[in-house]
Amino acid sequence: MNILVVNAGSSSLKYQLIDVERQKVLAKGLCERVGTEESSHKHGIDDNEVVISQPMKNHEVALGIVLQTLTEGPHAPLDDLSQIRAVGHRVVQGGKYFASSALIDDEVIARIDELAELAPLHNRAALSGIQACRTLMPGTPMVAVFDTSFFHSLPEHAHMYPIPYELSQKHSIRRYGAHGTSHRYIAERAAAVMDERLRDLKLITCHLGNGCSITAIDHGAAVDTSMGLTPLEGLMMGTRCGSIDPAIVLYLMTHEGYTPAQMDDVMNRQSGLLGVSGISNDLRTIRTAAEQGDERAILAYEMYAASAKKHIGQYIAVMGGVDAIVLAGGVGENCDRMRRMIFEGMQPLGIVLDEARNRERGYEREISTDESAVRIIIIPTDEEYMIAQDTYNLVTGAVAV
Amino acid sequence: MNILVVNAGSSSLKYQLIDVERQKVLAKGLCERVGTEESSHKHGIDDNEVVISQPMKNHEVALGIVLQTLTEGPHAPLDDLSQIRAVGHRVVQGGKYFASSALIDDEVIARIDELAELAPLHNRAALSGIQACRTLMPGTPMVAVFDTSFFHSLPEHAHMYPIPYELSQKHSIRRYGAHGTSHRYIAERAAAVMDERLRDLKLITCHLGNGCSITAIDHGAAVDTSMGLTPLEGLMMGTRCGSIDPAIVLYLMTHEGYTPAQMDDVMNRQSGLLGVSGISNDLRTIRTAAEQGDERAILAYEMYAASAKKHIGQYIAVMGGVDAIVLAGGVGENCDRMRRMIFEGMQPLGIVLDEARNRERGYEREISTDESAVRIIIIPTDEEYMIAQDTYNLVTGAVAV
Repeated sequence: MNILVVNAGSSSLKYQLIDVERQKVLAKGLCERVGTEESSHKHGIDDNEVVISQPMKNHEVALGIVLQTLTEGPHAPLDDLSQIRAVGHRVVQGGKYFASSALIDDEVIARIDELAELAPLHNRAALSGIQACRTLMPGTPMVAVFDTSFFHSLPEHAHMYPIPYELSQKHSIRRYGAHGTSHRYIAERAAAVMDERLRDLKLITCHLGNGCSITAIDHGAAVDTSMGLTPLEGLMMGTRCGSIDPAIVLYLMTHEGYTPAQMDDVMNRQSGLLGVSGISNDLRTIRTAAEQGDERAILAYEMYAASAKKHIGQYIAVMGGVDAIVLAGGVGENCDRMRRMIFEGMQPLGIVLDEARNRERGYEREISTDESAVRIIIIPTDEEYMIAQDTYNLVTGAVAV
Repeated sequence: MNILVVNAGSSSLKYQLIDVERQKVLAKGLCERVGTEESSHKHGIDDNEVVISQPMKNHEVALGIVLQTLTEGPHAPLDDLSQIRAVGHRVVQGGKYFASSALIDDEVIARIDELAELAPLHNRAALSGIQACRTLMPGTPMVAVFDTSFFHSLPEHAHMYPIPYELSQKHSIRRYGAHGTSHRYIAERAAAVMDERLRDLKLITCHLGNGCSITAIDHGAAVDTSMGLTPLEGLMMGTRCGSIDPAIVLYLMTHEGYTPAQMDDVMNRQSGLLGVSGISNDLRTIRTAAEQGDERAILAYEMYAASAKKHIGQYIAVMGGVDAIVLAGGVGENCDRMRRMIFEGMQPLGIVLDEARNRERGYEREISTDESAVRIIIIPTDEEYMIAQDTYNLVTGAVAV
């Protein structure tokens, strides 16, 4: 059964066509700079990727091009659109409404729109993608899969902020978290790799990419996570500062004369690895510079490792121990040096990295020693697969999601 | 040898007269609401406390009254001011300049003044106290003891923030920490109680009062601490929010129209236990309400405990283990229920509270079980004693501080 997964950003549209029953990706691609004159469409898998520059004035035009690519031409995986059984949409912010994925109807759309206040760019983009599908594929059922749903299980003391209670209520300010689909996926896969049931495990899942978040999953339920009201909180990231003294925000606004929008830009796009190193938000570039002795690159590397280490420690305390630490994302999956720094010195806590296994390349794999009390497992994340799975389940009624 | 310890706040002046060699407090007191019509002077020890309402238009007048109380009348501990060998001043912000306490001269005064930018209320108050002593006790040597000095040992990756490097440099933005004198004191006393050398231990020291901070002390050197550029960062406190998503600052300023000063007031004086409970910043009041079933009081209690637990966890990860967790401050010393909640569920980490010992009252004492791998020790803090000791050492040249 074919599910189209759509991830619409403010000026992009990512997609995958997945045959869920055969667990196979039939096609994938990305439309970039949608709404500009320079928009382009990448389509294909691995070596068979083609890039076509094409004007796309909005998400509907972009989706039209995608659907045409899927059904026309010698390499099209589909004969016609009726072979797409359903569409799964990634939605960043599900707020307090969505504790799980949902079949899209007018009410769901109204709520996603209402929640755009909390994630202005992301939720409005998702709505553009949903509307485009409604227009071009009327009658095809659609499912919204929220980045935040997985964190509805956080206890109140973990999702509330210690600000005046009335302000939290008035503005719905709470820890919503992010990357929930990724944390859910890698937790499920880690349990499978361990040959255990997720509900028997204490896991710490680390999504370390350009955005970074870490989640404590206690017997299957998320009990704490590092991202908060927005994806700015928590770890130091590629261009985001993560948690800092909140007084720094006021200090810089006062002394640099920043508007809230400028301060937001500093914290979300000029900080993190990029801000400290002055070189790049990409850890590979920083690693090269660090190996050549660049002091700010070395510092950025050390700060990033310390930030991850501290978050792992706090969730060990929250759960009173951990069975496995699961790593995903560009950095988590690929950077052996960063993994070594994160786990350095944690042997007394029963966390022992195997240096040789850590250097090996591969797919899902364990990189702790056989003697390590806590297992360290790498799981390449696959949010699209999780979205397709949720969509399949809701549309076929196979399983309550 | 008598040392006068002076702790000048913006509208207060606390003092203790300490005979360092005999480790005895000869007198202590507090002038409140200095600079207003309602100013008053409390003087005495325990049951012998007297309160005198007296106009004190500034710190110099207040100090004059204090010195008079110390030298005149039937209960005065001194015959004349020459019996005060030196004065030790508490100074909140020593910035990048002071890695240890310092004999006060014109250069030291100029630097404290320069650093007032980072702690406007506190450093200017300290300067008022220093100037008052200079005027009324000319020739008596003075020492400045900084709240921040103890944290000069933080490695660069722990004291730098992941914001643009140039902004950190331009504004001297870094983690300065606070409560350093308290952390230093309780660490030294804990080592003594354990009959170990501080330089052989991994300690986590928790100063839990109205302000709260936690420090990781690895073999005698502070390696991380929860307060940052200002004492707002880190744990949830009596009226301070501690670390929150920095985006919340911008969100509330935008949606409530707060100025930076108003937002500062919300985070420093309307948040924390007070903001969540809506009742009080005092944990005793909240405990009573929680026991009567008040839901917001229960929530505030749980959030405070979770905040402390998470910070302890992160420093266990930073140091790769811990030998003892040391508690001080009003909450740390006196609230057995909060201590129970903080350490609940941490048995798998080798941290086992002894329920009976935890309920006992007493002075310095151990409250972990004999089997606990990590010892939990309560040390009533005594910053004044530490200030007197530093002052004594610098004035007599006894020990390099």
